[in-house]
This record gives sequence, C-alpha cells and structure tokens, in this order.
Amino acid sequence: MEFKEVTGGVCAAKGFQAAGVHCGFRANPNKKDLALIVADVRCTAAGMYTSNKVKGAPITVDKAHLTDGHAQAILVNSGNANTCAANGIDLANECCRLAAGALGLKEEDILPSSTGVIGQPMTIDPFAKGIPEAAAQLAGGEAGSTAAAQAIMTTDTYPKQYALQFTLGGKTCTLGAIGKGSGMIAPNLATLLTFYTTDAAISAEMLDKAIHQVVPATYNQLSVDLDTSTNDTLLILANGLAGNEPVTAEGEDYDNFVAALTAIAEHMAALHASDGEGASHLITCQVSHAKDKATARAIAKSVVCSNLFKAAVFGRDANWGRILCAIGYTQGDFSVDRCCVWLESAAGSVYVCENAAYHPYSEEEASKVLAEHDILVRVDMGDGEAEGKAWGCDLTYDYVKINGDYRS
Amino acid sequence: MEFKEVTGGVCAAKGFQAAGVHCGFRANPNKKDLALIVADVRCTAAGMYTSNKVKGAPITVDKAHLTDGHAQAILVNSGNANTCAANGIDLANECCRLAAGALGLKEEDILPSSTGVIGQPMTIDPFAKGIPEAAAQLAGGEAGSTAAAQAIMTTDTYPKQYALQFTLGGKTCTLGAIGKGSGMIAPNLATLLTFYTTDAAISAEMLDKAIHQVVPATYNQLSVDLDTSTNDTLLILANGLAGNEPVTAEGEDYDNFVAALTAIAEHMAALHASDGEGASHLITCQVSHAKDKATARAIAKSVVCSNLFKAAVFGRDANWGRILCAIGYTQGDFSVDRCCVWLESAAGSVYVCENAAYHPYSEEEASKVLAEHDILVRVDMGDGEAEGKAWGCDLTYDYVKINGDYRS
Repeated sequence: MEFKEVTGGVCAAKGFQAAGVHCGFRANPNKKDLALIVADVRCTAAGMYTSNKVKGAPITVDKAHLTDGHAQAILVNSGNANTCAANGIDLANECCRLAAGALGLKEEDILPSSTGVIGQPMTIDPFAKGIPEAAAQLAGGEAGSTAAAQAIMTTDTYPKQYALQFTLGGKTCTLGAIGKGSGMIAPNLATLLTFYTTDAAISAEMLDKAIHQVVPATYNQLSVDLDTSTNDTLLILANGLAGNEPVTAEGEDYDNFVAALTAIAEHMAALHASDGEGASHLITCQVSHAKDKATARAIAKSVVCSNLFKAAVFGRDANWGRILCAIGYTQGDFSVDRCCVWLESAAGSVYVCENAAYHPYSEEEASKVLAEHDILVRVDMGDGEAEGKAWGCDLTYDYVKINGDYRS
Repeated sequence: MEFKEVTGGVCAAKGFQAAGVHCGFRANPNKKDLALIVADVRCTAAGMYTSNKVKGAPITVDKAHLTDGHAQAILVNSGNANTCAANGIDLANECCRLAAGALGLKEEDILPSSTGVIGQPMTIDPFAKGIPEAAAQLAGGEAGSTAAAQAIMTTDTYPKQYALQFTLGGKTCTLGAIGKGSGMIAPNLATLLTFYTTDAAISAEMLDKAIHQVVPATYNQLSVDLDTSTNDTLLILANGLAGNEPVTAEGEDYDNFVAALTAIAEHMAALHASDGEGASHLITCQVSHAKDKATARAIAKSVVCSNLFKAAVFGRDANWGRILCAIGYTQGDFSVDRCCVWLESAAGSVYVCENAAYHPYSEEEASKVLAEHDILVRVDMGDGEAEGKAWGCDLTYDYVKINGDYRS
C-alpha cells in the first residue's frame, strides 16, 4: 500500500471545509477558541471516547447523535471542557441547535466537543457569538484546516494536522486529521481530541470497526503524563465523494483504509508526544520479540511513561537501569532475562543493556545520542515474535511550570 | 490500644544495635553508605519484596535466608542497587559471609539489602572495608538507629525513623523502624527499603501475616512517582526480649501488634511522601463512603499519583477538576455522581466540589489552604461505607532537576 502525503489536514479530502475563530472562551482575543468542520454532504461517522468515568458533557451528546451512524459537522471549543457542570448537557445540545441553524443542517448531524479547564462555569454566549462567525469563514484546504487546528489547541505549541492519499478500488481517496493535546494525555480505550475526515465511501459500521482497530495500537500507546482526560474524543466523518465502491465489509479495501488510518494515527501520536507539555524530546519506544502483542505494547508504554526515565532523558543521562526498571514493573507474566536495549537517534545507536545486564558503552556517545530531539528506545525481549510501539516525551521544568499555574 | 511514641527508631526495642559507616559505594566520604542492624539474640523474621520482575540480587538471598523464618542481622548498602549485575547474587552472598564472620553469626542469619543506581558494576571491596568498621561501631538507642538510617539514604533529605511502645499480655513491647526512599517510590505488593525491629515475642508465621496485612493499606498506598523500584524490601526482626507470651495465633495480642505496626507504617509512609524527591508538599488523600475498601484505596492513590494535580499543588492552584479527573480514571466500576471534595490543611477547609460539580468557594481561601506544607484532599464518594488513604507529594522543578542528573 502506497501513501502520498498531502497538505490540507482535515480539509484535504474532497468536500470538507473548516474554520476557527475567537469567541470568548479564552480571555486572549488572539487565541482562537471555536472550530467548525463541515462536510458538503451527509457523512457516515463514528467516534471513540475517554474511558474516564468523569466525562465531558459533549460526549453524551455525540453518542446520542451517532446512534444512526451519520453526521455532517463537528463543532469544537477550547478554553472550557464543559465537564462537571450542572448545565453541561443542555449547553452541548444548545450549541448544536445554534450550529444547525447557522449551517442549515439537522441538529442531530452536529457533533460537539470541548476541551479546556474542567469544572468551570460556562454559558452559551460565546457559542452564540462564534458559531455564525465560524460558519461565515468556512474555507477549504490548508487555510481552513489550520484555522480549525489552531482553535482547538490548549497548551499545544503548534497546530497538528496530517493527511494522506491512497487508492481504494482504483479511486484516489484522501484521509486527513487535526488533533490537539499536550497535557492530561494518556488515552485509554480512546484518545485526546482528534478529528478525521475522508472522502472515501465507507459504511458507519466499518468506520467504527476501523477506529477500534487502529486506536489501541496508536493513540492508546501515547502518554504525556498518565493523566487520562475527561474529554478524550476521536471523531471521523466519511463523505463518500471519492466515488469508490463503498467499503461495507472486511477485505482488501478495508485493510487499505485501516493501513492509511494507522499511518496517520501513528504520525499524529508522535506529534502529540513531541509537543507534550514542556517537552524537549520525543521518546519513541519500539519493542520487538515480545511474548505477545499486549505485552509488547504494555512494555513500550511503561518505558515512555516512567517519570524517572523521562527526567533522565531531559538530563541527557543514559540511565538505562530506569528502562529495565520500567520494563520490570510492567503488568503481565513474561521473562526479562534476555532483554536487550539500545538508545538511538540521528546521532547513532548505543547498545546499553544485554540480557538484562550492563553492556559496555561510551557515556559520551550516549550523551550525543540523547542530545537529539527524537530519541528511540529499542528493546528486544528475546521472548517471542510480537512487536509494539509507544510515544512519550521527557519530563522537564516547563511541564511543572505549565501545570503549576495552568488556570492563571 | 494506646501507643507511646519513643525515640531510638530501629534500636528502640530491647536488644538491638545498629551502625552506619562510609565504605566507598558513594564517592563523597561524608555520606555514609553501609548500615548494619544486629539483634542480641536470634529473631523470628519476615520480609516483603518488590513486585518488579527485575529484582535486586539481595532479594533472592533474603528469600533463601528466610526459609527458616529466622535471622539476626540486616546489612544494607546505598549507592549501588546490586541489580542487573551478572555477579550480583555472588556479591550478596559474599557480603553475608563477611558480616557473619565479623559478627560471629551464621551466614544464613544475615539479610542483605541494596539501594542506589541500577545496573552499575559493583565489587566486594567496599563491603570488605565497611563491614568490620560497622561491626565495631554498633550502638544502641538514637545514635545507632540514626547512623543506620543515614547510611541507607539515597536522595532522601533526612533520615527516617519512628518507634512506638505498647503492651502485649501485660508486657511492654517496643516496635521501631528506619526507612529510606524518596524517588522511584510506588511500592506495589511490597515497599521501598524499610527495616523493623521489635522485642515482642511473635512467631515468624504471625510476623509474615502481620506485614502482609499492614503493607497493602500503608506502603502500597504511597507514591512519589509511580516508578516501582527493583529493590523494594521490608524486613522485620522480632527478638522476643520483651518477655511477652509469644504471639503464635490470631487474637487480641496479634491485633494489638498489627495496630502498632499500622500506626508506624502510616507514619513512615507519610515521612517518605513528605520527603519525596523535590517535594514541597505532603499530599494525603482520605476517601470515605466508597463502595468497598479496594475502590477507596484505588481512588485515594489515583489522586496522589496524578502528575497534573501534583503540579497544581506545587503552584498552589485549587484546580479541583484534576482531582475529579483522577478519581474518574481510577480502575473499577463505581459511581462518581455523589462525589464531594474538600481541600484541607492547618489553614482551614475549602469545599470545592459537591456531587461531582463545582461548589462555590473562595480561590483566595483555597490558596491559603494550599500554602501549608501538609495538604489533605478529603473525598466523600457517597457510594458506600469503605475508607482508604494514600500519601504522595507535589511535582516540582526539583524533582526534574534531581532526576535529570541523578548519576552525576
């Protein structure tokens, strides 16, 4: 399967427009805080949500609006999570009514989403102001997608978007995404906020199957701080405008769609980790020869989640004992005796641990490897054939700074 | 059951002496790095160890030496964890032989323990130098206990010891402890390094039962950074010199012993959390009216483990949404709908969340509460009758600093 990287993020696929405006959820007038993604035609759609028992109010509304497997627009605000608010569901429904009115769509075809501070009072006023403005500014291509990607950012330092082209049944299809999230990131059965659009024709049932297949291997293997958010949401819209024979069952087309979705989700997961709050390094852990897939993924995630190893990477200290420690406390019944570890980056590869014991290496060389932004921890468990990957970032002074005064 | 706090830590009970010396595991000659705790007579003994699959070599030797339920001395080094070293078990056995020789005891009655950097080369030389010196400096009371408590410290900023007196069958008994640990602290089925001594007469079987009863509610509810160490060990020696009727079965005496052990373990857990790496606040979370004990403990631990809430406490920011978030992602099937939360300290009590939604409060008052060192998060789940407690600390710049260059 060949993919071609294209620009335009969530507007890369035919028949999608987006916008981002400032409407007052945030105090700073230069920070956009309302995004709108709209399809030209009604789409098949699917969603996945946080496993947190405290859930943002929009999630309840999304689930209700997706019972028929269709939707046409996504409305997202940042600056307030609409979580733990007594009037949260009413507000989430009301903003859908406003968007439906502005766009000439059915209320049930609008999918709301919110991110920001949990438990803060919220009113409909910013929605009432912002929705007509966003509807008036809808644009296709890079401009529309970037504006929307900016409007959903919280502590993110840059907008996140990505898109690929591929073929299904001889037709060129495009799948693109925007996402936000750099703190309270430990998706668990779901993800942070991320929105996918495609012009591929694919049934709601197969869309749902595809995201449930891809998310466990990608977004669920991503952690910035182990804090699973209350608002994590992934939504995907497919408008069918590519004209391919609709994907309605498993088979080659479905596999190709899943491959494209996986490629984008892996890329986005790395973007989120790389922009983790305060991060100065992207840490990818790649585990091979593990007992089974679940173990491989759990080990990789354990390594990128270790506060101690994250702090060591910040300090460019090849303290590999902390990697072994994190592998060792991974849940599950497996052997660590043949575990080997390499620290790698564009600056080289250093073999630090052989069969769970010290392997002679140069600390100087290791420091050079750790001076790069993108660090790969390669782990060979020598215990089977399964592979797994996880993404995280280092733990820095700035993480503490950002989260010591997030609300101020 | 009445307890009387007494001085002397691990030497508070009759018939125990201790020492701490510098012998070269650490470069700094002013940092003690070898501790010895010796009983006048052979003791019943028990131990609990890390659940990490990567284990310090001394743990293997402790298990072997405790198969007969007896021991007479504990030998501990800091500065090197003796973990992931090919010759680790040989070294752990050899240091027991040296200690047995210096003390005129059986090798099988020595319990070794190590803490420090994982995976660093290690030799017997510092042991050979330090053991005779420590044996020559054995002392009772405060002096001996403090020297040993200092010698087991790694990043701890102060030695940790505590002791209580109580009566069993009319006889005054004493139980005391020393402990180390302020990073890589998330005991799980075991604990950090901590050593208990008592003059109570109690069988090895009941000692083992007592520690397995107390640790899950105390040390296992403690986390500094979620990193479960490879060397966590709790050892307890009982020499019987108090002259009480030996505790050999469940009953009033056993319950009293467990109560004293619990009181000390709670106190020590709070000391470890309070001295967590870089910590400026002790965070205790007390959960009431939870569905069951496991849920109460899991919720309390989830709150004190949240990096985001820990950073908010550092910033004195009453960001209670992060508490709800952490409660919400706690594993298990329970309801959050009636959850109420108070932030408390010596400066007052602020009611921040009622039935999982915002409860009006003064941010100024909350800041005052959070300016104190000891913070209590009181959570009422309104969902049952069970209680649980957990201990943690805030996440600060200094945590990152300490762990960015731990080895240098």
